[in-house]
Amino acid sequence: MSANSRFAVATHLLMSLALAEEKEPGALSTSEELAESANTSPVVVRRLLGMLREAGLVTAQIGRGGGTTLARPASKITLLDIHKAVDEPVLFAMNPNRPNPACTVSCRMREVLEPVFADAEQAVETRLAKVRLSALIREIRPA
Amino acid sequence: MSANSRFAVATHLLMSLALAEEKEPGALSTSEELAESANTSPVVVRRLLGMLREAGLVTAQIGRGGGTTLARPASKITLLDIHKAVDEPVLFAMNPNRPNPACTVSCRMREVLEPVFADAEQAVETRLAKVRLSALIREIRPA
Repeated sequence: MSANSRFAVATHLLMSLALAEEKEPGALSTSEELAESANTSPVVVRRLLGMLREAGLVTAQIGRGGGTTLARPASKITLLDIHKAVDEPVLFAMNPNRPNPACTVSCRMREVLEPVFADAEQAVETRLAKVRLSALIREIRPA
Repeated sequence: MSANSRFAVATHLLMSLALAEEKEPGALSTSEELAESANTSPVVVRRLLGMLREAGLVTAQIGRGGGTTLARPASKITLLDIHKAVDEPVLFAMNPNRPNPACTVSCRMREVLEPVFADAEQAVETRLAKVRLSALIREIRPA
């Protein structure tokens, strides 16, 4: 798979929102503020916030003075929630082309590889599910 | 990460080579034959074979009558070898942009996320390392 940084950037945005909430409950952050924190463009931020909103991790108030907040406490958001919100559902994809029916390998590839891929995916998910946003926040909180 | 099928297709090619070798030791397969088996283009196959050759998993004889063979027995090739040969080294990438020095989250993201990403990657590698090409071959061999 080719790695991309959506997951890392989305986690960054949520951590920024969690810290804003800590400072001032209900605080709304704009995509410009978040983009500055992650040193990326507001366009990238808005796209990610859209995915996080669809996944129920953030809520948005639109219009003047609007912005984004966490939809639930950082202790109720795991890295798996974030991964699922912004990443493709699978680490490894099967060959998208139709199997060649004349070829034994071709006809059975899906059957032999899918369990291995599913097992690897499960291993990743198990790890990500154990890490809460609140734990990451505790790590970075200024002493 | 966005999933791609390089890993699945590369595994397919190696399984085809392993079966060709079983039928006739030293058999050479052309990229056209392999492309037909995987129902993909010879260009894709040649690109993948180049990566597999660099990783020492296949050897090529160029010129007329040439082709590709496994560089070592299927029992000495694991899915992790194949994954490493054709995929990016990481599942999840960090934000490629420079941290914003004024932002606590930005400055510490790498530090808090890298161990989690490394742990997830390790979990995947452990699983892939356990599966040998020869085991997959046994599963698909016509009864």
